[in-house]
Amino acid sequence: MEPVNVRWYVEDVSAHSAPTAIAGLPGVGHVGKLVVDHLIHALSAVKVAEITSTLFPPQMYLGEDAVLRLPRNEIFFVPGTDERTPVIFLAGDCQSTSAEGHYTLAEGYLRVFDLLGVRRIYTLGGYGVGRMVEHPRVLSALSSSSLKEEVLAAGAVVSPEEPVGGIIGAAGLLVTLGRLHGMEGIALLGETSGYLVDPVSSTAVLDVLERLTRIRADRTELTDLAEQMMTEVAAIANAAMPKSADDLSYIG
Amino acid sequence: MEPVNVRWYVEDVSAHSAPTAIAGLPGVGHVGKLVVDHLIHALSAVKVAEITSTLFPPQMYLGEDAVLRLPRNEIFFVPGTDERTPVIFLAGDCQSTSAEGHYTLAEGYLRVFDLLGVRRIYTLGGYGVGRMVEHPRVLSALSSSSLKEEVLAAGAVVSPEEPVGGIIGAAGLLVTLGRLHGMEGIALLGETSGYLVDPVSSTAVLDVLERLTRIRADRTELTDLAEQMMTEVAAIANAAMPKSADDLSYIG
Amino acid sequence: MEPVNVRWYVEDVSAHSAPTAIAGLPGVGHVGKLVVDHLIHALSAVKVAEITSTLFPPQMYLGEDAVLRLPRNEIFFVPGTDERTPVIFLAGDCQSTSAEGHYTLAEGYLRVFDLLGVRRIYTLGGYGVGRMVEHPRVLSALSSSSLKEEVLAAGAVVSPEEPVGGIIGAAGLLVTLGRLHGMEGIALLGETSGYLVDPVSSTAVLDVLERLTRIRADRTELTDLAEQMMTEVAAIANAAMPKSADDLSYIG
Amino acid sequence: MEPVNVRWYVEDVSAHSAPTAIAGLPGVGHVGKLVVDHLIHALSAVKVAEITSTLFPPQMYLGEDAVLRLPRNEIFFVPGTDERTPVIFLAGDCQSTSAEGHYTLAEGYLRVFDLLGVRRIYTLGGYGVGRMVEHPRVLSALSSSSLKEEVLAAGAVVSPEEPVGGIIGAAGLLVTLGRLHGMEGIALLGETSGYLVDPVSSTAVLDVLERLTRIRADRTELTDLAEQMMTEVAAIANAAMPKSADDLSYIG
Repeated sequence: MEPVNVRWYVEDVSAHSAPTAIAGLPGVGHVGKLVVDHLIHALSAVKVAEITSTLFPPQMYLGEDAVLRLPRNEIFFVPGTDERTPVIFLAGDCQSTSAEGHYTLAEGYLRVFDLLGVRRIYTLGGYGVGRMVEHPRVLSALSSSSLKEEVLAAGAVVSPEEPVGGIIGAAGLLVTLGRLHGMEGIALLGETSGYLVDPVSSTAVLDVLERLTRIRADRTELTDLAEQMMTEVAAIANAAMPKSADDLSYIG
Repeated sequence: MEPVNVRWYVEDVSAHSAPTAIAGLPGVGHVGKLVVDHLIHALSAVKVAEITSTLFPPQMYLGEDAVLRLPRNEIFFVPGTDERTPVIFLAGDCQSTSAEGHYTLAEGYLRVFDLLGVRRIYTLGGYGVGRMVEHPRVLSALSSSSLKEEVLAAGAVVSPEEPVGGIIGAAGLLVTLGRLHGMEGIALLGETSGYLVDPVSSTAVLDVLERLTRIRADRTELTDLAEQMMTEVAAIANAAMPKSADDLSYIG
Repeated sequence: MEPVNVRWYVEDVSAHSAPTAIAGLPGVGHVGKLVVDHLIHALSAVKVAEITSTLFPPQMYLGEDAVLRLPRNEIFFVPGTDERTPVIFLAGDCQSTSAEGHYTLAEGYLRVFDLLGVRRIYTLGGYGVGRMVEHPRVLSALSSSSLKEEVLAAGAVVSPEEPVGGIIGAAGLLVTLGRLHGMEGIALLGETSGYLVDPVSSTAVLDVLERLTRIRADRTELTDLAEQMMTEVAAIANAAMPKSADDLSYIG
Repeated sequence: MEPVNVRWYVEDVSAHSAPTAIAGLPGVGHVGKLVVDHLIHALSAVKVAEITSTLFPPQMYLGEDAVLRLPRNEIFFVPGTDERTPVIFLAGDCQSTSAEGHYTLAEGYLRVFDLLGVRRIYTLGGYGVGRMVEHPRVLSALSSSSLKEEVLAAGAVVSPEEPVGGIIGAAGLLVTLGRLHGMEGIALLGETSGYLVDPVSSTAVLDVLERLTRIRADRTELTDLAEQMMTEVAAIANAAMPKSADDLSYIG
């Protein structure tokens, strides 16, 4: 078994080529994964390939009827419209189990992107700041400074100072190694606490991504998730807070 | 030395081919290992191959007369009867020392299964639930939903929700990678505390396995082990419990 | 992708050959890195090559305009003068993520040194002693005892007893493996607490290095850094100290 | 660089062949290393080869005049006498940094033993028992039960029960893998606390080894070390003990 294995679900790869790839793998707050899983569902994207790897954890997943499967990442395709180009998505279960494996896997994804004619990659993720963030900013990192104006206009922050410590894993490697494959790359990282799966941060990332890609998709589910989370967090915060001044009026 | 080495103990491999393989390697509660070691002994299965690997721990084992040997997993064979097909067993000392090694070793076992003509694999193990379980359920995971009815009829649970977190190691990989080799696979996991070697859970797994395979074997030894364990656990629990209401009647 | 990748920034490598290499990678107190980064800047050295590796952490760095790049080490060149030979510098972001990777990376650096005609290597680093050191000594380790007199004359300590535990990582491996490539090697390690980035220790190492190589470079920046550090450490120490005897005179 | 590298210090390897190899690498209590280092010195054995490896820690060692060297293991040779066969010793700095590396290194040592015509291997080490042992037993493990009588007669314990947990690292692997190379193997492990470098345990191992190999060597140095250790341990124990009954006679 090779370290990285690609299984195609379509006969004619060229019929599913797309200039734009959007990657959202598991990571901080599952911010990127939530966005990409949402878009695949809302746009009824079609699965075109599956990637398994000996660099993934040796942990098998249960599906319907308890059918067992390998951990996997998947490639989905959605055709273009008048408004926007065709898009492929990279989504799935996991990242590498080792430092070195991150490089090998990123090269594996890029070989698939090459076959599909990808010209630009968006990688989506979260940036943990260690506190709850009501209005998360979206930080960006670029394959080239020529992308700066476009990203700023879409509402993201472009700063050499943030994310502090750079970007770890596929969200960063697809941009840097993608450049060596002749692909433009834009990483979009939503601020998030780092403690919770965070659909609020995902919504902020999706806002920026939609402006950049002209993707439009019903986002009822993601919005519901985000509102539910905000309600729960508010309830927890409320329970932990002291009574307000009014409640203490008897003191006077 | 190759990562995985197979040494055959028989001249004619084809004379020991079997459509059914049963694997029970060390794991949670040693549930699977106890069942397979029991069956090998009770059925007087014959050793046909030995697998050593640089992916096993570098820990040598002592045998009779302090003769030292490599850590190893072994393949045993038992001929068919009117009631059931021939069976091979995978048993032994250990699993991989690294995440990546689990994939390599599972492929190694499957190459042996291929040579022996295996068509169906049972993998046996434990599922740790963090508390003592008096009547352990047996959870299953399948290579295909077509196996569902058969497994339900044998008394196992078939649910996409359990085991939570899927299955780690050989018990899961032999099912998922086995499917790529054209083999059916059924994982059977007995609920167990996760704290103790658990012959009670093994007995529950054996019950299901016997119904599925029509294997019949004297199980006096396993039953004795299980009764002994239940007595010991009851004694411990008793010692730790408060007196019953009757004992406290003098209070009134 | 190969484990170690070299990208050249010059057309004619031979035009940038130098008999002397000076390596200062991240390590204890960043002592070596501070010296080499300082010299590259002060001597306006020119970048001639960049080394990336799957053995570096999978952590991408942000540059100007948030442009993302791979972690990398770099080779810089500065021409010779009447006073001294041409010099190349090895500087950069990181060392290996694994024990075995240290050997592979050191061989990678030495292949570059071979191409550039290097005859002698200086490796610079820190030696953590677990306490603040006002006047750090510079400990040395050599590829050959024939270098002893020269190093002693330059003010370094030559002792088989220190650094206790030898030298870990590139600073040591470039000397030992370099010898197999026919290169002389001198490791210079400045004593440092091990708790702080330490420009004071770097200054001590630079003093010895300048005597050995006849490199002269404006060191205003490094001196400013060192003075600033000493002031801050003194302030902290002062705040933590009891008042002096004079302040306590009212007791009498 | 290969994972395991052998550098020969002699022109004619066949002139240094020996049927007996004795290995004592660093391990529990340095019991084996002390014995082998002692014999190399006492018998004025000659160095015939040096083994370096990317599987050793990337930690360089200081020698005379602070000359730096790679971590290494070494092969020494001592000619035969009327009393005994020629012997080679395997001694040195370290064992593998990874589980898998232990197998690779053991094969490397055995290739050298093959070239030198080795027919029997003694591996020496310690067995940590977690308490001070005044009269340490020497436990053995064998490549074949045919060696049992010989080892018992020399005063070692031959038991399938001890060492509990078998033998980890080169001391075990040289016996099990050596058998595949047609070499007899005897592991001798001295009981030791596991907390201290233990020349007392080494002396016990040496006693057994001398009876088995008919090696005779002045052991003043090792005896001095052992007496010094016993004195120090007694002093520590004395300081920690309550006064004796005599000292308490005033109570009566």
